Amino acid sequence: MTRKTKKRSVKAGLPPGTLMHIGDKLADKPEVIYLEYAEEHCIDQKNVDLNNLPEPKKEIVQWLNIDGLHDIDSIEKIGKKYGIHNLALEDILNTDQRPKSEEFEDYNFVALKMLSWNKNLKEIESEQVSLIQKMDFLITFQEKKGNCLEPVVKRLKESKGRIRKAGQDYLLYAIIDTIIDNYFLLVEELETEIEIIEDEVLKSPNNNTLKKIERLRRELIYLRKMIWPTREMLNNLLRNESGLMSDNTKLYMRDVYDHSIQVIESIDTYRETLTGLMDIYLSSVSNKMNSVMKTLTVFTTIFMPLTFIVGVYGMNFDYMPELHYKLAYPVTIGVMILIAGIMFIYFKIKDWF
Amino acid sequence: MTRKTKKRSVKAGLPPGTLMHIGDKLADKPEVIYLEYAEEHCIDQKNVDLNNLPEPKKEIVQWLNIDGLHDIDSIEKIGKKYGIHNLALEDILNTDQRPKSEEFEDYNFVALKMLSWNKNLKEIESEQVSLIQKMDFLITFQEKKGNCLEPVVKRLKESKGRIRKAGQDYLLYAIIDTIIDNYFLLVEELETEIEIIEDEVLKSPNNNTLKKIERLRRELIYLRKMIWPTREMLNNLLRNESGLMSDNTKLYMRDVYDHSIQVIESIDTYRETLTGLMDIYLSSVSNKMNSVMKTLTVFTTIFMPLTFIVGVYGMNFDYMPELHYKLAYPVTIGVMILIAGIMFIYFKIKDWF
Amino acid sequence: MTRKTKKRSVKAGLPPGTLMHIGDKLADKPEVIYLEYAEEHCIDQKNVDLNNLPEPKKEIVQWLNIDGLHDIDSIEKIGKKYGIHNLALEDILNTDQRPKSEEFEDYNFVALKMLSWNKNLKEIESEQVSLIQKMDFLITFQEKKGNCLEPVVKRLKESKGRIRKAGQDYLLYAIIDTIIDNYFLLVEELETEIEIIEDEVLKSPNNNTLKKIERLRRELIYLRKMIWPTREMLNNLLRNESGLMSDNTKLYMRDVYDHSIQVIESIDTYRETLTGLMDIYLSSVSNKMNSVMKTLTVFTTIFMPLTFIVGVYGMNFDYMPELHYKLAYPVTIGVMILIAGIMFIYFKIKDWF
Amino acid sequence: MTRKTKKRSVKAGLPPGTLMHIGDKLADKPEVIYLEYAEEHCIDQKNVDLNNLPEPKKEIVQWLNIDGLHDIDSIEKIGKKYGIHNLALEDILNTDQRPKSEEFEDYNFVALKMLSWNKNLKEIESEQVSLIQKMDFLITFQEKKGNCLEPVVKRLKESKGRIRKAGQDYLLYAIIDTIIDNYFLLVEELETEIEIIEDEVLKSPNNNTLKKIERLRRELIYLRKMIWPTREMLNNLLRNESGLMSDNTKLYMRDVYDHSIQVIESIDTYRETLTGLMDIYLSSVSNKMNSVMKTLTVFTTIFMPLTFIVGVYGMNFDYMPELHYKLAYPVTIGVMILIAGIMFIYFKIKDWF
Amino acid sequence: MTRKTKKRSVKAGLPPGTLMHIGDKLADKPEVIYLEYAEEHCIDQKNVDLNNLPEPKKEIVQWLNIDGLHDIDSIEKIGKKYGIHNLALEDILNTDQRPKSEEFEDYNFVALKMLSWNKNLKEIESEQVSLIQKMDFLITFQEKKGNCLEPVVKRLKESKGRIRKAGQDYLLYAIIDTIIDNYFLLVEELETEIEIIEDEVLKSPNNNTLKKIERLRRELIYLRKMIWPTREMLNNLLRNESGLMSDNTKLYMRDVYDHSIQVIESIDTYRETLTGLMDIYLSSVSNKMNSVMKTLTVFTTIFMPLTFIVGVYGMNFDYMPELHYKLAYPVTIGVMILIAGIMFIYFKIKDWF
Repeated sequence: MTRKTKKRSVKAGLPPGTLMHIGDKLADKPEVIYLEYAEEHCIDQKNVDLNNLPEPKKEIVQWLNIDGLHDIDSIEKIGKKYGIHNLALEDILNTDQRPKSEEFEDYNFVALKMLSWNKNLKEIESEQVSLIQKMDFLITFQEKKGNCLEPVVKRLKESKGRIRKAGQDYLLYAIIDTIIDNYFLLVEELETEIEIIEDEVLKSPNNNTLKKIERLRRELIYLRKMIWPTREMLNNLLRNESGLMSDNTKLYMRDVYDHSIQVIESIDTYRETLTGLMDIYLSSVSNKMNSVMKTLTVFTTIFMPLTFIVGVYGMNFDYMPELHYKLAYPVTIGVMILIAGIMFIYFKIKDWF
Repeated sequence: MTRKTKKRSVKAGLPPGTLMHIGDKLADKPEVIYLEYAEEHCIDQKNVDLNNLPEPKKEIVQWLNIDGLHDIDSIEKIGKKYGIHNLALEDILNTDQRPKSEEFEDYNFVALKMLSWNKNLKEIESEQVSLIQKMDFLITFQEKKGNCLEPVVKRLKESKGRIRKAGQDYLLYAIIDTIIDNYFLLVEELETEIEIIEDEVLKSPNNNTLKKIERLRRELIYLRKMIWPTREMLNNLLRNESGLMSDNTKLYMRDVYDHSIQVIESIDTYRETLTGLMDIYLSSVSNKMNSVMKTLTVFTTIFMPLTFIVGVYGMNFDYMPELHYKLAYPVTIGVMILIAGIMFIYFKIKDWF
Repeated sequence: MTRKTKKRSVKAGLPPGTLMHIGDKLADKPEVIYLEYAEEHCIDQKNVDLNNLPEPKKEIVQWLNIDGLHDIDSIEKIGKKYGIHNLALEDILNTDQRPKSEEFEDYNFVALKMLSWNKNLKEIESEQVSLIQKMDFLITFQEKKGNCLEPVVKRLKESKGRIRKAGQDYLLYAIIDTIIDNYFLLVEELETEIEIIEDEVLKSPNNNTLKKIERLRRELIYLRKMIWPTREMLNNLLRNESGLMSDNTKLYMRDVYDHSIQVIESIDTYRETLTGLMDIYLSSVSNKMNSVMKTLTVFTTIFMPLTFIVGVYGMNFDYMPELHYKLAYPVTIGVMILIAGIMFIYFKIKDWF
Repeated sequence: MTRKTKKRSVKAGLPPGTLMHIGDKLADKPEVIYLEYAEEHCIDQKNVDLNNLPEPKKEIVQWLNIDGLHDIDSIEKIGKKYGIHNLALEDILNTDQRPKSEEFEDYNFVALKMLSWNKNLKEIESEQVSLIQKMDFLITFQEKKGNCLEPVVKRLKESKGRIRKAGQDYLLYAIIDTIIDNYFLLVEELETEIEIIEDEVLKSPNNNTLKKIERLRRELIYLRKMIWPTREMLNNLLRNESGLMSDNTKLYMRDVYDHSIQVIESIDTYRETLTGLMDIYLSSVSNKMNSVMKTLTVFTTIFMPLTFIVGVYGMNFDYMPELHYKLAYPVTIGVMILIAGIMFIYFKIKDWF
Repeated sequence: MTRKTKKRSVKAGLPPGTLMHIGDKLADKPEVIYLEYAEEHCIDQKNVDLNNLPEPKKEIVQWLNIDGLHDIDSIEKIGKKYGIHNLALEDILNTDQRPKSEEFEDYNFVALKMLSWNKNLKEIESEQVSLIQKMDFLITFQEKKGNCLEPVVKRLKESKGRIRKAGQDYLLYAIIDTIIDNYFLLVEELETEIEIIEDEVLKSPNNNTLKKIERLRRELIYLRKMIWPTREMLNNLLRNESGLMSDNTKLYMRDVYDHSIQVIESIDTYRETLTGLMDIYLSSVSNKMNSVMKTLTVFTTIFMPLTFIVGVYGMNFDYMPELHYKLAYPVTIGVMILIAGIMFIYFKIKDWF
């Protein structure tokens, strides 16, 4: 149930810059896609040969996307070709990396998480996306083969919005925006989960409810841990002075920054909601206990005196005059019914039923 | 019961600047009102034609107010006419936007929330109000048709206070002030709610009390989430260097800023009060439990020995001399009354009733 | 039980600068006292005519003290006479104002609270004191007629300390110092209250103890809410660059600032103490419950087997040899006493009494 | 049980600079010791006459130590002789002063606390030590007669370490260092107390344990309240620009600063430990309750059916065939033993013993 | 169970700079290893004679490693030889020192902790490692003989990575990196411990579970207390302006800094997880209590009326007609079975089993 931070330790003792893939091995072979576009045209090329990587050109935006990180050689080749520092490559391969952005000499390095909700496991799934932003050139590394950047590719091809007119910084923005927009989807999934639990708490709280609340709370903590540094990272990009980010794109970036804050605020609200649900759950458990106790008490207090009375007339004393009266039996029964009735009404008034 | 952040996700994957109304569709047609005033005159025009929007003039304050945001075309027309950035338009349409103020090249963008208390649903209702402040020109966008800015219009027409003498920045201030003054009304409604719950907790705590506390606490969290960024936004306006805010108006703005802090402090106090009420509630529940337990214990401890005694004389041994004494029966009864009496007094002293 | 923030909302929708007294109406007529002093002389004049207010003079310290704020006309007159901004007047009249200091063009505005403990209501009572500090001129506004500034007047008349030799800034300091010194009195009253509750918790915790703790905790929250901005306000005065504060007086002001921190620290300690008392109270309640449960258990477990045994010999089987032994009855009684004794000792050892 | 902040209020209303001893009167007469040293010599003089105080000399370090603060006249005399501001004298006399350092024109004022553990009262005892640091002259004021600065005097006389070679700033450092080193002793005493309580919680938690935890927690809060401003004060000294502190001594001061942080961290750890102990205590109390409940339940559930069975055969119906079988009695007894046995085993399996 | 901060107090009262080993005495004799390397060669020398320490050379990186700190004379010799300030030596010997870095005139002093998990004691073990970084010369002091720097030595000899090409700052980095990489191992061990406890909480919570949780929580607090200042220390190194750190190495250092944050975040997550586990544990305890109560109540409420009925027919009234009917006995038995059955079904529906 605890989230894994495993495997990171296999690197302990190794020299820094030792490239090593940390994380689950998912894709068999890295899939490399290349896109090149200007306002007028957009060319894409699938399955790019790693020995024949495209040269950086001028006046045109180039985007190289790598899916799958398990093959260290390929990553190293790309790193050498485009002059990426080994430390950045290390961070790209370490899929346990926390979101961050770092300025290197002539490029920016950005790492962030694509997050989605696994409905079966009721768990957040994360995929690391790393970006290397150079002048007119953008390289993205994805942990898993998948379509999380598909919408951006589509927009590029269909030339929707102003994306084709803008430079690589706008492309960077578009990718980050796509990923952060996805967080809203995730937040809604979590909200649905919370609503389900809320229903359960209010209608039929049981032994598992607390565990469900606890598990969801843990997912929220994990989510916050992922998004908090993302916010920081975006703030870094906003204050980036490298010249790789135009003022206009920063305007858009500010928007994404706002979104990240909104997500964090939602998470915090959900955490407070869960705390509230827990209180209600605990109180409903103790209410149940109360009603059990009341039942016990009502029964005991009604039957104790009755059992005492029948005990009295079960005694074997020689001289018990009542025993010989003809009406004694029905009168005794009547008295007992009366006692029970009075007690019953008394508890009814005291609101014990 | 959880507050909705829904619908925001429908935009995931779409290019930024795609205008889309996020929020409930409330007004059928946007209603556009235009006001123009200087110290000497004040002209207002209802149902302004969107194809014939007023031109910006000099030396006069112009105010265009749009009620209803569902018709994207209209908003887009206005945006084009007055040169508003698509990102700002997007924020205007997204009624889930958190309060903020942003400086654009030649105008300021301010978004804040009109909040009111829905007595039936016991919920805070929010309406987004966005403002575009240009030199001598102010545009306001309201989510719902309504009269939340009515007092400002009235003051303009009646030339109350210094409002007609001052510029668009004072108008901006007057609108924000009106909205924030409304928060005090809301805070008082919440205070009344808290007082009602307090009464319930002290006099007749029941199963629903906790849920009511919890719900109110959630409203307070929501309110804080709304007003906290408002405070920040006001602070931004105070430090605004765009020349769109005169020093004199900033003096007034500082006052509004103070008010926002006062509201936040009230909310924090209420949250602490609710926590205290919860403690009292829980303690009163456990006190009730205690009294149930005591009743049970008193009955059991009084009747157990008595039942035992009558059991003794119900035994069928051949040789039980007591059984044949004439006074045995009344003496036994007497002894039992004595035992019960002593125990009763003992519990009375121990304060178990 | 909740503290009132009421009445503030009556201003919603009114233009700023609308003077309106917010707070309880306490004094019938504002009482105006005028003092004028230099090192050599000190003149005071009671019941100053509002139409004939003293002119500002040079080289002499002038102090105008107004008691009672309900008469808006009088306040307005004073404001006009000495050129006080309407916003400041508004804050003076709004007795719900949080403590603050604000710099205006040629004067400082300071608002703070005179706090005292109402022993009957067990509540903190607050009175707003506002100060307008101009060159050689000081105006003070008090909410209620009273003697909270009496000690300062007395010192002025008796020329105690260096007060007569110093300027208006020292007078300002003396007034603030007097008010903050009073907080220590209040803190001691609260300490006494806490000690009383502590005694109650340790000796005879009852149903009301929790409510008392809760109420005191609320007073502490209220007190903190009042003193926290006071600290901030003093800090502002220390960094005041208007030339209205001499460096020497700032030295004294730093001292007052230290005192305000000391009060805040005391409050925080008291709050922790109350939390601790609550824990002890709750634990003592659950201890009582425990002792009730133990009594119940001891009685039940001792009498259950005895009742069973007497039941056995109450059975009507034809062939129960024990019934016919002569010693059966006393032996049975003896066995039962033995069983009860063993159990009693067992529970004694297990420390259940 | 609450710590005293009393007596401070006696000053409310008095003019600032009124010298008044706040605190318990402890020493009968102030004891004044004078030390004068350079690398080559060290002269000390006890019982210095207050009317004949040593003149400040050049090129030699002079130290005047005053024990006992109750005699205001003496303090005033010293203050006048060496030109100490009345505000500083006030702080020296107010033994309730929080630790701080203040720069005056040509001297520094430092106030801090000598703390020790009173084993009998299980309380922290504090003594205020104030220092006036001038060029080549150091004056120390101690609340009580005592030997807390004894080690420094001894080192001076024996010329241990570099103390004789260095200036008055090193002497200041040595005194502060001695006092802060003492905090470690105190921390260890507290640790011992915590270990004792820990033992009690784990082995024999009783009614008093919680109160002991609570009291210790309060001492820790008090300690933190004392040491937190000390840290701040040391930081101030480190950034002191008065020229009274050499860079070399600041290096040593940094060390003391580190120590103060270490003490604070220890306190925080202890507070968390106490919270943990409280949780264990509460859980052990509820475990005890659980075991009481189980005993009760086991007894009731085992004996209830048995008592029912014997009741059945105690009925007086004419036609109850079982009553006349010869084996009925032993069989019934056997069946009951069987039932009891099965239940016993069942509870054993369910781990209720 | 509380962590030891003992022994630190033995220094109270001693002059600063008094060298004294604080900590457990572990190694008998300090073991001194010397390494000298450039890109082309690497010489190491074991058991270096302390009277014949290597002279600092130019253009070559020199590393002196001392294992074991108990022999103060040796440490003092080394300190004198390489001009290390007594305060730094004091910190090296005080193995209770919190992690920090300090700039001295011509060298940097760094202290940090080698942490490992002791599986038997279920405790974190810490060893202090101190570094003195001079131009081309690095001295390391280890508390215990051991191999925690072994991997670095190995890499140096095998010339793995860029370590031989870089200067002493890279060596410093490599050592710190090795130590911090080890924290990940520790974090994983703790994760395993948490998983074990989690299992226990979910499957068989018992009396010891809470104590285990508490102990682990304490280890986490201790760990955080160790790593938090490490993060600060790394930040200091990053902002170090002494010229002893090249920009390139700072790039690597930033990486280590990131790692330290990651460790802290993991610890915080674990602490939240433990809090969650505690909640589940407490809730499972109270659930158990609930089930005990239900069993008790079910038994009592089923048997009470039955026992009453058999009591009725055990009464000795002369005139009880039912007693003489032939079917009375079986009918009574039947009725009782019916009552028990109905109750049983009722409780089944109410979900009390």
